[in-house]
Amino acid sequence: MEAKLTLIKVGGQIVEEHETLQQLLSDFAKIDGHKVLVHGGGRAATRIAAQLGIESPMVNGRRVTDKKMLEVVTMVYGGLVNKQIVAGLQALGVNALGLTGADMNCMRSEKRPVKEVDYGFVGDVKEVNAGILSELIAKGITPVLAPLTHDKNGNLLNTNADTIAAEAAKALAQYFEVTLVFCFEKKGVLRDANDDNSVIPEITKPLFEQYLADGTIQGGMIPKLENAFDAIAAGVKQVFISKADEITQYTGTIIV
Amino acid sequence: MEAKLTLIKVGGQIVEEHETLQQLLSDFAKIDGHKVLVHGGGRAATRIAAQLGIESPMVNGRRVTDKKMLEVVTMVYGGLVNKQIVAGLQALGVNALGLTGADMNCMRSEKRPVKEVDYGFVGDVKEVNAGILSELIAKGITPVLAPLTHDKNGNLLNTNADTIAAEAAKALAQYFEVTLVFCFEKKGVLRDANDDNSVIPEITKPLFEQYLADGTIQGGMIPKLENAFDAIAAGVKQVFISKADEITQYTGTIIV
Repeated sequence: MEAKLTLIKVGGQIVEEHETLQQLLSDFAKIDGHKVLVHGGGRAATRIAAQLGIESPMVNGRRVTDKKMLEVVTMVYGGLVNKQIVAGLQALGVNALGLTGADMNCMRSEKRPVKEVDYGFVGDVKEVNAGILSELIAKGITPVLAPLTHDKNGNLLNTNADTIAAEAAKALAQYFEVTLVFCFEKKGVLRDANDDNSVIPEITKPLFEQYLADGTIQGGMIPKLENAFDAIAAGVKQVFISKADEITQYTGTIIV
Repeated sequence: MEAKLTLIKVGGQIVEEHETLQQLLSDFAKIDGHKVLVHGGGRAATRIAAQLGIESPMVNGRRVTDKKMLEVVTMVYGGLVNKQIVAGLQALGVNALGLTGADMNCMRSEKRPVKEVDYGFVGDVKEVNAGILSELIAKGITPVLAPLTHDKNGNLLNTNADTIAAEAAKALAQYFEVTLVFCFEKKGVLRDANDDNSVIPEITKPLFEQYLADGTIQGGMIPKLENAFDAIAAGVKQVFISKADEITQYTGTIIV
């Protein structure tokens, strides 16, 4: 039987405020067995960029990353947010290791081709090297993944944290029985966006297609669920979409 | 016989300009066998801090690190400089892994006690966990160490890069035959500060004491040489003080 591994993805909002971050790290530390944390940090990046006088336009919910913004996200995701999480987890007895895709060539990507929109230095993941990661995890190390990859030609690339989480989960599914948890601000996928208690408890692929067709599921939730089904198809055991303060309870929406 | 390991420490100036950095990485990639790179980044930190309107006073050649400046060095050392080096090395076929002392609890420090000067969030190294580092190195990983440690209570601490290099070299000397190379802007330790060709080829401990007494060696070179002799006493095989563009030649001053 394969060892269990829980991979939690948390967004920027949670990791950027001291109190919510401490609560998250404390909850995360309580999760039994092997684990991985993937974090965002977009709001902190936007704040630091603004302080440095750098604009960062968003198109279709994704940041356009020019050379200056790439420096900012490298600093903020790879440095500020990642290392504060690592230090915080070490204090809680979790032997964390902060990583970008460049570290140990964990995750190689290619700069997104320019079509209608030039997203700039944004990477689409092409290859995950989970071998050495899985060895480290088996030794008790907890990887903390920043949303940055590299192209193996010397360039770091800004990469969506949900994608990082899904790709890491898929690659690690070769070595572990993986549960992937996407945390966000709601309790789960909502049937009615205005009713926080309308959580859909379980979504199957046919149900997803139906919800897409009737408009129940819209906007940013679509790529999140696509990532989830993609992960399931690649061998991830289960995916939860849940509130960050409920990561130890596995409530919310389960994707199977 | 122990495997050889070369640990190179480069200062901020070299890693902050694209051309000198590329030359350094290219030279570093050519070094045979196991290797570790330790980098500074003070000038970039000062520049980013200035852009953010944060002042960073220096006392006795060391930065005073308040809470805001700690955030800047966490971003710049742990993120911008470290990850650009890692991505650059990966492009050259070096399987680099960027680390702060918090990552895998590599290097624990304690906040420097306040005496005449309050250096703020500055750490004095207390413990190096070289076991897992040496395993990774033996597997072909090249650690790239940023000048940041942690106190195991959740706080990152700014730490002198020469100290990081010496402490890492000492701890790794349990596993490898270590050569430590301190790169700086001169060709070696100079007998005459105004004559770049007055490199002292070899300095022994008694010679160091004599040079200290007669004023030949002064200022920032004193802690660098103290670190070097400290490393030799702890089992490091040899220490070079050399120009960064000569790291593959082992010229400069040898400390034995």
